[in-house]
Amino acid sequence: MLESEIMEKINIKSKLKTFSDLWSPKVIAEMNNYQFKLVKIKDDFIWHSHEDTDEVFIVLEGTMYIEFNTEIVKLSEGELLVVPKGTQHRPFAHEEAKIMLVEPRGVINTGDTDSDLTAKNDQWI
Amino acid sequence: MLESEIMEKINIKSKLKTFSDLWSPKVIAEMNNYQFKLVKIKDDFIWHSHEDTDEVFIVLEGTMYIEFNTEIVKLSEGELLVVPKGTQHRPFAHEEAKIMLVEPRGVINTGDTDSDLTAKNDQWI
Repeated sequence: MLESEIMEKINIKSKLKTFSDLWSPKVIAEMNNYQFKLVKIKDDFIWHSHEDTDEVFIVLEGTMYIEFNTEIVKLSEGELLVVPKGTQHRPFAHEEAKIMLVEPRGVINTGDTDSDLTAKNDQWI
Repeated sequence: MLESEIMEKINIKSKLKTFSDLWSPKVIAEMNNYQFKLVKIKDDFIWHSHEDTDEVFIVLEGTMYIEFNTEIVKLSEGELLVVPKGTQHRPFAHEEAKIMLVEPRGVINTGDTDSDLTAKNDQWI
């Protein structure tokens, strides 16, 4: 690292205020080849899976649900879930919730499923 | 994934209540080969670096500082910092702070420096 490099801290709440669109992950940080993404969600997402990677959900505000084949997991503020790779899942929220995703660079939000909800990748804020 | 696999959500605040030792990272989740670790910190840590990986700090409660060669970054609750690989850094906190680290499995808390503060690795809670 160059001595002149500036360490830029990221305020998560401030970043959340910079966008309002739903189901469209925004990248706030990158560690090695992994990205930290903020997402606002409401209503239903689609069934999908990520064949090559696990995916971490952390709820920052509100409550969300993730439906799996055999159960629905309710996640509230301060709760974290690892969705294993290859696992079909369907996120949804009754009221708007704010979440952070951690996953490798390049992961598409709808995974193996094409959809109107497929978001542009690598949107930095 | 087997249909019978249970998705286990992790409540970060509940996990924080299960330990009190300082500077001793506890693993709460694993995504691919990356780990999410909780740490309670107070007073001074040592100068060190991680030659092979970036490291993410997220402050959950309280305030911490990370000293670099040319600056000291103050991190408050809800703030995140990526320490680039190979970067000498020294964390410290005036009052106890609770933080989450994200980094590859196997990273030692004191990096390239042996110390009394070197913690046992891979401590799951």
